[in-house]
Amino acid sequence: MPGNSFGTLFKLMTFGESHGPAIGVVLDGVPPLLDLDVSDIQKELDRRKPGQSAVTTPRKEGDIVEILSGVFEGKTTGAPLAMMIRNEDQRSKDYGEIKDKFRPGHADYTYQEKFGIRDYRGGGRSSGRETACRVAAGAVAKKYLETLGIRIVAYTKSVGNIVAETIDYDVIESNIVRCPDAKKAVEMEALIKDLRGQGDSIGGVVEAVVMGCPVGLGDPCFDKLHAMLGHALLSIGTVKGIEFGDGFAATQLRGSENNDAFYQEGDRVRTKTNHAGGSLGGISTGEDITMRLALKPPSSITVLQKTVDRFGADQDIQVHGRHDPCICPRAIPVVEAMIAVTILDLFLIQKAF
Amino acid sequence: MPGNSFGTLFKLMTFGESHGPAIGVVLDGVPPLLDLDVSDIQKELDRRKPGQSAVTTPRKEGDIVEILSGVFEGKTTGAPLAMMIRNEDQRSKDYGEIKDKFRPGHADYTYQEKFGIRDYRGGGRSSGRETACRVAAGAVAKKYLETLGIRIVAYTKSVGNIVAETIDYDVIESNIVRCPDAKKAVEMEALIKDLRGQGDSIGGVVEAVVMGCPVGLGDPCFDKLHAMLGHALLSIGTVKGIEFGDGFAATQLRGSENNDAFYQEGDRVRTKTNHAGGSLGGISTGEDITMRLALKPPSSITVLQKTVDRFGADQDIQVHGRHDPCICPRAIPVVEAMIAVTILDLFLIQKAF
Amino acid sequence: MPGNSFGTLFKLMTFGESHGPAIGVVLDGVPPLLDLDVSDIQKELDRRKPGQSAVTTPRKEGDIVEILSGVFEGKTTGAPLAMMIRNEDQRSKDYGEIKDKFRPGHADYTYQEKFGIRDYRGGGRSSGRETACRVAAGAVAKKYLETLGIRIVAYTKSVGNIVAETIDYDVIESNIVRCPDAKKAVEMEALIKDLRGQGDSIGGVVEAVVMGCPVGLGDPCFDKLHAMLGHALLSIGTVKGIEFGDGFAATQLRGSENNDAFYQEGDRVRTKTNHAGGSLGGISTGEDITMRLALKPPSSITVLQKTVDRFGADQDIQVHGRHDPCICPRAIPVVEAMIAVTILDLFLIQKAF
Amino acid sequence: MPGNSFGTLFKLMTFGESHGPAIGVVLDGVPPLLDLDVSDIQKELDRRKPGQSAVTTPRKEGDIVEILSGVFEGKTTGAPLAMMIRNEDQRSKDYGEIKDKFRPGHADYTYQEKFGIRDYRGGGRSSGRETACRVAAGAVAKKYLETLGIRIVAYTKSVGNIVAETIDYDVIESNIVRCPDAKKAVEMEALIKDLRGQGDSIGGVVEAVVMGCPVGLGDPCFDKLHAMLGHALLSIGTVKGIEFGDGFAATQLRGSENNDAFYQEGDRVRTKTNHAGGSLGGISTGEDITMRLALKPPSSITVLQKTVDRFGADQDIQVHGRHDPCICPRAIPVVEAMIAVTILDLFLIQKAF
Repeated sequence: MPGNSFGTLFKLMTFGESHGPAIGVVLDGVPPLLDLDVSDIQKELDRRKPGQSAVTTPRKEGDIVEILSGVFEGKTTGAPLAMMIRNEDQRSKDYGEIKDKFRPGHADYTYQEKFGIRDYRGGGRSSGRETACRVAAGAVAKKYLETLGIRIVAYTKSVGNIVAETIDYDVIESNIVRCPDAKKAVEMEALIKDLRGQGDSIGGVVEAVVMGCPVGLGDPCFDKLHAMLGHALLSIGTVKGIEFGDGFAATQLRGSENNDAFYQEGDRVRTKTNHAGGSLGGISTGEDITMRLALKPPSSITVLQKTVDRFGADQDIQVHGRHDPCICPRAIPVVEAMIAVTILDLFLIQKAF
Repeated sequence: MPGNSFGTLFKLMTFGESHGPAIGVVLDGVPPLLDLDVSDIQKELDRRKPGQSAVTTPRKEGDIVEILSGVFEGKTTGAPLAMMIRNEDQRSKDYGEIKDKFRPGHADYTYQEKFGIRDYRGGGRSSGRETACRVAAGAVAKKYLETLGIRIVAYTKSVGNIVAETIDYDVIESNIVRCPDAKKAVEMEALIKDLRGQGDSIGGVVEAVVMGCPVGLGDPCFDKLHAMLGHALLSIGTVKGIEFGDGFAATQLRGSENNDAFYQEGDRVRTKTNHAGGSLGGISTGEDITMRLALKPPSSITVLQKTVDRFGADQDIQVHGRHDPCICPRAIPVVEAMIAVTILDLFLIQKAF
Repeated sequence: MPGNSFGTLFKLMTFGESHGPAIGVVLDGVPPLLDLDVSDIQKELDRRKPGQSAVTTPRKEGDIVEILSGVFEGKTTGAPLAMMIRNEDQRSKDYGEIKDKFRPGHADYTYQEKFGIRDYRGGGRSSGRETACRVAAGAVAKKYLETLGIRIVAYTKSVGNIVAETIDYDVIESNIVRCPDAKKAVEMEALIKDLRGQGDSIGGVVEAVVMGCPVGLGDPCFDKLHAMLGHALLSIGTVKGIEFGDGFAATQLRGSENNDAFYQEGDRVRTKTNHAGGSLGGISTGEDITMRLALKPPSSITVLQKTVDRFGADQDIQVHGRHDPCICPRAIPVVEAMIAVTILDLFLIQKAF
Repeated sequence: MPGNSFGTLFKLMTFGESHGPAIGVVLDGVPPLLDLDVSDIQKELDRRKPGQSAVTTPRKEGDIVEILSGVFEGKTTGAPLAMMIRNEDQRSKDYGEIKDKFRPGHADYTYQEKFGIRDYRGGGRSSGRETACRVAAGAVAKKYLETLGIRIVAYTKSVGNIVAETIDYDVIESNIVRCPDAKKAVEMEALIKDLRGQGDSIGGVVEAVVMGCPVGLGDPCFDKLHAMLGHALLSIGTVKGIEFGDGFAATQLRGSENNDAFYQEGDRVRTKTNHAGGSLGGISTGEDITMRLALKPPSSITVLQKTVDRFGADQDIQVHGRHDPCICPRAIPVVEAMIAVTILDLFLIQKAF
């Protein structure tokens, strides 16, 4: 029942339910003397927050973060850095529909069985709301990685069967789907709006790239770079799969096609291709670390579904509320955050030796 | 540079290089009073060992395991269970070809950069040989899981673009590809042999299923069931991707298609479909836990490749030796083992609460 | 630089500086379905808070705790339980005296060297104020241990060279020194007041007993019961030594004097004496777990002292403020708390097997 | 039931029973490129091995260590370093006396209750024999610390009530008690021999000093330097207490007596006295780290004792065999080893930030 902490040297512990007093995160192992302002955190939270566009939930939450400790005169001190977001919008509401009924695709049933108790208000701990804490943690990690020249970019690669064909990083934040292909972004937006109109939802693929990562991060044999990233990213509720480099496509390749030939570029050993996605033997090569994540369609839909209640009786259910019809746009800062905390942790571990 | 240990309550630490004196594993947190004989371990190791069939490396290694501690009068005592396999076949050999040249697709370059030193004989620590230790650990975990009625099955789902169409568990161990489709197994075998003749290799997909897992395993939020499995399985050197349930296919589904409707079956809440692959909110549902792994084509090929050496000079390389042209058949016991140790650890954690 | 978290299954992570916005703690791994009210926490905090008596600092802090998560309808949910105490009394103050000068006996110098930055206001992270978070965590652990019949008692055994001669648990909370010997308590109180008058301070010994602990807690070989307790208790800033059972006195005994003879009492194996202090081979025997802690005299004194400043210059220093002349009375709830979190963690680990 | 591993970045996992096939240790997180020869390990093991002098057990064990992995061409590779010692002297013996009877002062009863099974041959896992693995691990850590100029010395401070009065490090290894006072060493030796003649045993105090430790090791708030050392050293079976600096004596001091005044010595801030024992706020000051350990009299004595057996019947017991009448001389390398692994781990953690 632990499991709410992550990391070895850069550790996070998150807390909070969607409808409790607050959510937050404590970071233990923040390198000292890092310039940090609350706006560094808020900026990332704003990219995740609900109500930011026509393709996200219209729910309005300020998600104003407060730094409670660990920063002094604009710099981190090396002491734990705690951040808290008060929950708003907690009007007394009728939760009757979900108090006893198990929503399909949600954790209602498994939480009830595992814990014997469940904060049924809006999903409680299992709510996607906990990802705000990851974003806050990631914002701190990103600040440090920036000083090392490491940059992380994630974007919507596909929504349903609409796939981005061009990858222009400059386009990502200029459309509300966060797609690097401006033309496909328009199609994706239309599809999402259409599904929302039907009370339904759709999945998608998020692609992420880490640029500027030094050679040598990741540890044999269980803490390989992509094993750690896999752990981090598969822990995001909506993620059902992950692949690195060519991933599943590599299963159809021959070794002679998939091996990346080495060549020398100045002082640096590089590879001509990057089928491997930036790691060999679980250790970063210095090439871009590339990965793709499978995000399932959000489970909260108003379409009528079959389920049972806590008492074993058959029930119909419609999950009302203001939900995301496609989670990709809001998941992107969460993906970047989890990559950032993982890379920072591996960087610190490597620095120790 | 740690990273050679895994688990919270059921912990393993592995050691050993492919051409050093021995490889082995220590298990800390073995439940006491479990019946265990060395043959329980050897049986699983024999499924992984080289030279077992016409589609694996012809290298002959006995891989005879010795239990060094933790078992008394046929039962585990709760003390650390150490197992060791002496390396054989360590004839003095000319490693000139790989001593200074970086083999494409291998960890030679990244180990050299990370550690500043590298046991170049046969890959050293980065050799696939370390997976024998995982299999030994998994054999102990499996014995315990059996007492709980939990069963793990893995098999070759595809080799290159040949995909199993029928899934018959009884067929798996009856063909050397470990494919559950007897007809496709013949095609796969032919393809592998053909590629070996060419000095090349091929990737494949391994599918795995956990049956009989109780509801409630996996811990929110970072230690979700599939995050832990992802960590465990992506740490196998050859695995480049993993997906649970419908995985990447779910990205093209609507919520109304992907949600699994609940129904009551006797005392038990079940789902009519299993798109989720056995977990909701990161916690097991009691349905089969299903996953697919992308295995890259083995990097050791005799096809001529371009590379560089430690001194920055361009080099041609041919990786001679007796290598696996497709790793799926031998990876299967490794996959099962990593699943077993992960599930056992989560089971023990859940039992504590 | 991590180190602000503790525990394996029952984990705590604390945060906060003495003069920052807030201090707090997050508990991960709280067993669900435990009855818990904020008053359970506040009650323990009130035992630790400053200004409670004539022998503690007269500083007034409400130390009002707020539960931010993990409790629903009066019961723990198994989700992280976060608690926060807002800092009060943060008037703008002249810290000139300690901003650049290193206070003898304090962590000013070591923090400056370790982190390269230091929140000099009232000690920052190194302030004894962080122990309030431990007390809050311990209050939750105690509630659970109570349901198991485990009780923890700590008291002032000596102040300077005044030693309690009788041990009456009922007397402890009835005097402000928390001494189990009412007569000696009067002497201790007089000594403490006298030293405060002189601007000086005094050390003491705190003794603690765990009653009702089941047989079998503690894990060979590194996580022995008293090793875990030692780790927990030596992490309290003021503690300079710990002994279990007869401790240092046992070094003068013969084996025939120190060994505790076993006898049978009903179903239970017991020992006639308890020189061992409740553990054998690092595992609890079911007898009382007994220990004594050496608490140094508080470092904050107004007596003139010699020191240096950050720039290497000799300096005189007088540490003004409202400090504790003897920390034993207020350390007692902290000691109990650390014992409680340790025992609970070991209990859960044992329950897993 | 785990607990057989220790450390965060420099991790050890030990295994083995006194009468099983072998004992050993795996080190994960060994810095690469360290010169290491098997003789570096053997040298330390020889200081611990039985039969080395007239005041230790006459039991003869070669304790020949074999390095199984992690060293290549005389240097560590950063891969796990496994070491194994085969058990000798395992003649079939009559364990009837201890198979069912619980030896007072031993872990027989607690192991039986905790695990439900017990390897009764010579104590099994609870045997002091496991400390050989600690010494092997410590030998590796010491080699690294030497390169940093960190030196660890431990010695017998007292045996029974005979206390060393002079501390001359050069004398320590020149007498069989390992006492730094040559004159008192003679008395100690006589006392130990006398007690052995009586079939009894005696306790003692071991003092240890770490010299040359840089400022800044140890992490607030739970992983303070002396908390980590306390954990490490209290995990040695025979240790019943530990104190740092003035320890329990400080409880009788005033703050004005106990605080160590700072002064500047060249570039370095130093303290005129070292009551604190080398740490402030849990972080090393650069002064000597000093500590004293209470070692109980060995429990194995031939004096007749009262006990019970597994079936609840009263029994007399005499523990025959070849036992140490005073464990201090052989504990010293174990104490040094545990200090070394702890300091190295803290050093690596600090280096990461």
